[in-house]
Amino acid sequence: MTFKIGLLGFGVVGTGTAKILLDPFGRHPVLKEITIGRVGVRSLDKPREIELSPQLLTTDLESIVTDPEIDIIVELLGGLEPARSLILKAIASGKHVVTANKAVIARFGDEIYAKANEKGVYVLLEAAVGGGIPVIKPLKQSLGANRISSIMGIVNGTTNYILTEMSQKGADFSEVLAKAQELGYAEADPTADVDGFDAADKIAILASLGFGGRVKREDVYCEGIRQVSAVDIAYADRLGFVIKLLAIAKDTVKEDSDTLELRVHPTLVPKTHPLANANGVYNAILVEGEPLGQVMFYGPGAGSGPTASAVVSDVMNIVGILKSSGKTKELDPLLSCIHQHYCQIAPMEDLSTRFYARFLCRDVPGVIGHLGMAFGDHGVSLESVVQIGIRGDLAEIVVVTHDVREGNFRNALAAIESLEAIDSIPSILRVL
Amino acid sequence: MTFKIGLLGFGVVGTGTAKILLDPFGRHPVLKEITIGRVGVRSLDKPREIELSPQLLTTDLESIVTDPEIDIIVELLGGLEPARSLILKAIASGKHVVTANKAVIARFGDEIYAKANEKGVYVLLEAAVGGGIPVIKPLKQSLGANRISSIMGIVNGTTNYILTEMSQKGADFSEVLAKAQELGYAEADPTADVDGFDAADKIAILASLGFGGRVKREDVYCEGIRQVSAVDIAYADRLGFVIKLLAIAKDTVKEDSDTLELRVHPTLVPKTHPLANANGVYNAILVEGEPLGQVMFYGPGAGSGPTASAVVSDVMNIVGILKSSGKTKELDPLLSCIHQHYCQIAPMEDLSTRFYARFLCRDVPGVIGHLGMAFGDHGVSLESVVQIGIRGDLAEIVVVTHDVREGNFRNALAAIESLEAIDSIPSILRVL
Repeated sequence: MTFKIGLLGFGVVGTGTAKILLDPFGRHPVLKEITIGRVGVRSLDKPREIELSPQLLTTDLESIVTDPEIDIIVELLGGLEPARSLILKAIASGKHVVTANKAVIARFGDEIYAKANEKGVYVLLEAAVGGGIPVIKPLKQSLGANRISSIMGIVNGTTNYILTEMSQKGADFSEVLAKAQELGYAEADPTADVDGFDAADKIAILASLGFGGRVKREDVYCEGIRQVSAVDIAYADRLGFVIKLLAIAKDTVKEDSDTLELRVHPTLVPKTHPLANANGVYNAILVEGEPLGQVMFYGPGAGSGPTASAVVSDVMNIVGILKSSGKTKELDPLLSCIHQHYCQIAPMEDLSTRFYARFLCRDVPGVIGHLGMAFGDHGVSLESVVQIGIRGDLAEIVVVTHDVREGNFRNALAAIESLEAIDSIPSILRVL
Repeated sequence: MTFKIGLLGFGVVGTGTAKILLDPFGRHPVLKEITIGRVGVRSLDKPREIELSPQLLTTDLESIVTDPEIDIIVELLGGLEPARSLILKAIASGKHVVTANKAVIARFGDEIYAKANEKGVYVLLEAAVGGGIPVIKPLKQSLGANRISSIMGIVNGTTNYILTEMSQKGADFSEVLAKAQELGYAEADPTADVDGFDAADKIAILASLGFGGRVKREDVYCEGIRQVSAVDIAYADRLGFVIKLLAIAKDTVKEDSDTLELRVHPTLVPKTHPLANANGVYNAILVEGEPLGQVMFYGPGAGSGPTASAVVSDVMNIVGILKSSGKTKELDPLLSCIHQHYCQIAPMEDLSTRFYARFLCRDVPGVIGHLGMAFGDHGVSLESVVQIGIRGDLAEIVVVTHDVREGNFRNALAAIESLEAIDSIPSILRVL
């Protein structure tokens, strides 16, 4: 039996995908039954790393998603349109879909899965989160026996590379960003990465899988790493932390509730925490559940080869199902999307977390008393107050709180800002 | 639709499995369609943590594996017999099987999978390796696009707990073993764990999955942790290593060859290596492949809850398949065993690795020259030679080699043992 895939897009990941399919020796034997049927590209005469037969290439992407010869559509275009429309047309034509497109799934997942369920086709997306790390399928197929209490991870390689470089070289954000752009680790327009939007797409997808409900992308609170300074990284280090951009989805209430915290922000992570050691472009995702406890998945979060590994594994999964059952009578509930409702999202003011804040102050002995009073007045209890440096004629004081309601902390800060002894509050970061 | 499972064994993992199935709220909805049909126990009137209806319990395990009402047999007996015979009878009766039994699969996997393929049933074993960590299914379903070059990991929680305690407390093996036995982390007869046999079962299974061929359990070279001393742990620490019991399966030759290194032994792991941070009863498995690079799976390697999580996930997988395709026309090639041949195993003498050796010597200035000469004569190149302590009137010298053929290293050691200046060679360990 041979199964034909239609590739939409033939960039970095598409090329990686073709390389695997054209060189199956030493890989799983089912790969020998998969061939590339059509490839949709923007331009027919661009030079390419892999030479495919010219008849395979077309600029008419719609003709691929409706081609009766094609069994599985692999969407590697990225972005919202025409990806969304082409995925929907492929589904309408009864084709299974494999996609690496976190943006389109995070925003249009409900529309796409509703149509896929109607037509009885699979839409798989292992490559959309964590690059080559198996995490989507483990969440769907291996962890479903658990009540998941949290999913948190480093899911954006660009920002992790930047933060790791800043930490190892003591360099500042803009300097490292420029270098990352030079190396191709960051885009010319780095917004999606450094402002946390890419991580927000991914945690929306992971949360939906882990917590069994739909999640609206716009419900993800999102703070990027532009405001993280080399100074804070150095202070965090002295206090026993590394700073990571974490994407977090967390069950806030026990019992009968689906209330979720859903957030992306730079976070002080204790150096002994499993996530603290994921450096450079590596990703790591920690899942916690009952009765499992914690498991972590770690690996390359991006790149041609790793992402193609995930894409091809999804294709192989579908082929495995097609070979074993032919036309399915219904979709496997572990592989399809069965969500009926939206998760309830907890407002950020209600979030309870630890905070790190750095203050520049004029009058140190006086100000520590004032800080302590202001925090105390708002029910914020402090774990440590450290005078940690001098900057010009100002003293730098770093405070780490115990767990505190975010709303209370913000109110305390407002009061502190008006203190005469306080010059400014250059950094506020959350602590894991 | 309801699917009935028959549990063989109702100890720690069986109880954990029942707890999940009896309390499905907040877990994957497919669990509500799974019920416990029969439970095979050794004694009917033993008091149990969970009260099941007495009609469910029986001491006649054969009646369960042939019961026409039962869809899936969950084998949690451990050991070789009657587990093997019952699994084979269950398969002969057309039942799918879920097992946590690494010993029986490592030794009788080919017999069991041959029968399962004949009957068109699945035998799943996520719980057999890594406890609650999803690693078997990721290897089968998510990494098949890769040419796997190595699988290595910490797959035995007992020995990892012992080595971690020795390292953190400076305590000796026997002392920590006694404590582990007290805490229930080690068995009264600790042989299977501390001599590496359990890890060898597991790496045989992982190798077979990763390298696409059958593996004979007796081909796994196996060295336990009894000879690891607090002294070596301390020296390793000073040299930048931790000592872990690693199970390793590694492709030795490129191109057309299936030659595998297959071994379990205590290993010096650089502190910066991802596996170095898996401590206590945690397990971690690192898989390396092309084009993926490295991925690591980390989590609780044993215990009632984690192991039950893996068992129930396998049950859910089978139920998902049964719901979606009913009677399958053939088995999914990603989930079944399709191996036709045995992997070729590389002899240990041909292994190329780094070594750590500790010598007790009489005459230090002289002996370093002699050591260097003897190693050099046998083609062993040294990375470092450190005189690291004094023990009585003997000096302790630690040597770390570059990569060297194991056979050459052994020959060099034989020559060194006969040197007059050498009192003894208390430790020889491999270095990652």
